Amino acid sequence: MKNFSFCNPVKIIFGSDTISQIAQEIPADARILLIYGGGSIKRNGVYDQLAEALKGRTWFEFSGIGANPDYETCLDAIKLIKDERIDFLLAAGGGSVIDATKFIALGYYATGDPWEILSTHASPDKALPFGTILTLPATGSEMNANSVITRKSTQEKLSFNSPLVFPKFSVLDPKTTYTLPARQIANGVVDTFVHTTEQYLTYPAGGALQDYFAESIIKVLLKYGEQALKAPENYDVRANLMWASTWGLNGWIAQGVPEDWATHAIGHELTAFYGLDHAQTLAIVLPGLLEVLIKDKSEKLVQLGERAFNISEGSLEDRALATIQAIDAFFKRIGVNTHLSDYGLGEKAIDRIVERFRERGWILGERQNITPEVVEQILKKRL
Amino acid sequence: MKNFSFCNPVKIIFGSDTISQIAQEIPADARILLIYGGGSIKRNGVYDQLAEALKGRTWFEFSGIGANPDYETCLDAIKLIKDERIDFLLAAGGGSVIDATKFIALGYYATGDPWEILSTHASPDKALPFGTILTLPATGSEMNANSVITRKSTQEKLSFNSPLVFPKFSVLDPKTTYTLPARQIANGVVDTFVHTTEQYLTYPAGGALQDYFAESIIKVLLKYGEQALKAPENYDVRANLMWASTWGLNGWIAQGVPEDWATHAIGHELTAFYGLDHAQTLAIVLPGLLEVLIKDKSEKLVQLGERAFNISEGSLEDRALATIQAIDAFFKRIGVNTHLSDYGLGEKAIDRIVERFRERGWILGERQNITPEVVEQILKKRL
Repeated sequence: MKNFSFCNPVKIIFGSDTISQIAQEIPADARILLIYGGGSIKRNGVYDQLAEALKGRTWFEFSGIGANPDYETCLDAIKLIKDERIDFLLAAGGGSVIDATKFIALGYYATGDPWEILSTHASPDKALPFGTILTLPATGSEMNANSVITRKSTQEKLSFNSPLVFPKFSVLDPKTTYTLPARQIANGVVDTFVHTTEQYLTYPAGGALQDYFAESIIKVLLKYGEQALKAPENYDVRANLMWASTWGLNGWIAQGVPEDWATHAIGHELTAFYGLDHAQTLAIVLPGLLEVLIKDKSEKLVQLGERAFNISEGSLEDRALATIQAIDAFFKRIGVNTHLSDYGLGEKAIDRIVERFRERGWILGERQNITPEVVEQILKKRL
Repeated sequence: MKNFSFCNPVKIIFGSDTISQIAQEIPADARILLIYGGGSIKRNGVYDQLAEALKGRTWFEFSGIGANPDYETCLDAIKLIKDERIDFLLAAGGGSVIDATKFIALGYYATGDPWEILSTHASPDKALPFGTILTLPATGSEMNANSVITRKSTQEKLSFNSPLVFPKFSVLDPKTTYTLPARQIANGVVDTFVHTTEQYLTYPAGGALQDYFAESIIKVLLKYGEQALKAPENYDVRANLMWASTWGLNGWIAQGVPEDWATHAIGHELTAFYGLDHAQTLAIVLPGLLEVLIKDKSEKLVQLGERAFNISEGSLEDRALATIQAIDAFFKRIGVNTHLSDYGLGEKAIDRIVERFRERGWILGERQNITPEVVEQILKKRL
């Protein structure tokens, strides 16, 4: 097992009808900014619950954070915060709203260009405090210190991580997910699945507990992924998916073991250039990456196959391949297509993405052997 | 799944040769008190590593914390803290030293009798900050806010829990466990096992992820428990046991699911009256409790049998019983005896313990159906 040093201080308030509890988590004299997206929280009752919980408080609102939250919108929010002397943020939505809020919380204190938080990882030394109300389980952003921001003008999608942007608290009410479109639920399952494999499908590193935990998350997704689509108001199904998605990226399963993250890096470019849903890009890239790197990852693939997919027949190579096919089949079964052509993309898209990797000089993967040439091989398997 | 609200802010510094990292975790001007036990840290090199890390700092020491740390010794430490104007504590040892340090940290601020922290759960509103260096994996105290203290004069063993006594950091270096006697390693495995079952072997409550996580911890114990005794210097074996013991009681697997804790409550009395090792008491009580409550706990017993012990033949009742037998056999296999008579105890001890439960009016278990009469049935099975 590798050495590590880690702390995750996020307070989780989980369960049915828990939004009302935010009042006791926010200082009484705070000037609060509620940040949200396109208005789904007005349709699903979350906005009303928040308004009720914030009764008597001083609060403002900023809406319009879209999927793949963009830099320019975040700057508008920072301006409002300065104008209104806001000192506490409240993010209500999915990973996009929470990621944007993290960037806003830190960017508020930037003395230079806030973009540098993403481009060079220059960071202010403090951030505005904030809480989150999660309504779309997927990214784990509610319990981590990561954020991914897109700059439309330059078609860049970049991330940062800072312990300053751990939420003070996150409210997870599974009922808020009942009205989500099937596509968003399925995307969330794929996103959580791939977060987990990025921290697990590498090489054996003596982290038995971490392996079992990662497999636990994957087993919950396999057990409840389809059911969540068929029975949207089954509380325990939605609760387990929500909780699993938080654990997929709250940092604990990564401690002491190698990480990959190449699938995300390649996927981000597909979104930046072609606007695919984040999870769609992951569903395309992961099976291809596993196939190209099957030798490097065979021990973990065989282990996952046996423990999560009941694959235990055939040679080790057969089993590794069967595991990759089972992953691909699972994504399709919940309605997320896994090939570039499913989204109208072909060779041209591959060239453009590989070119971006060449320009940036990015080398990826837990063994640092995913060169732009390997990215090309991976994507060619996904035409 | 049940609603919950939880935060675990402990920073974990895990790995080989990590003790040196404490320097950066403690304020430069702190007046530090190093608290430890009977001197094993002087024999295993931990004391020297600490002295090296604290070079140039202002630090004092207090030794002599024994197993089942006692109240009177803690009061002596509080007096030293006041005399020397200590403002940061450093606990180096196992659960006893850490539990004592928690009581000392909180008791320091008690305005009345510090015993009330245990007897009536009256709590000061602050505690001294402290870090821990774990040398005996077992109690999970390094990553929780629990403490158990014994008052010898009245033969009482009581516990408290306060978010004020989460360690600021805990250093877990698996190498510090290499020189532990086999008995302590085995005890730690049993303790971790029973922590996990107290939060798992209840009734199904829709916590699929929590169940898988609990089973993960148990699988690590089953996989590495014996090996740790045979190959004390196998780093990954010791690292996984250490990490599993932390997860057995850091609070996360309990969130959203019912908890039992009757085995601990009964076991504490066995220690308070007869001085048995904590883990020995758990190894005695657990199989008896599961047998008496087999109907209440059958679904979870069958699940554990299938997922951790490969028990999947026979009627559900057979499988539940086979699981209990497998647990009993595992404890014996690692050298922890599971019957009262193994420790020279008999009917008289049972009467005394049942009497204590009657006096206190304690009713235990996740269904609150373990009356003193049921405690008697449980212990009679363990003669």
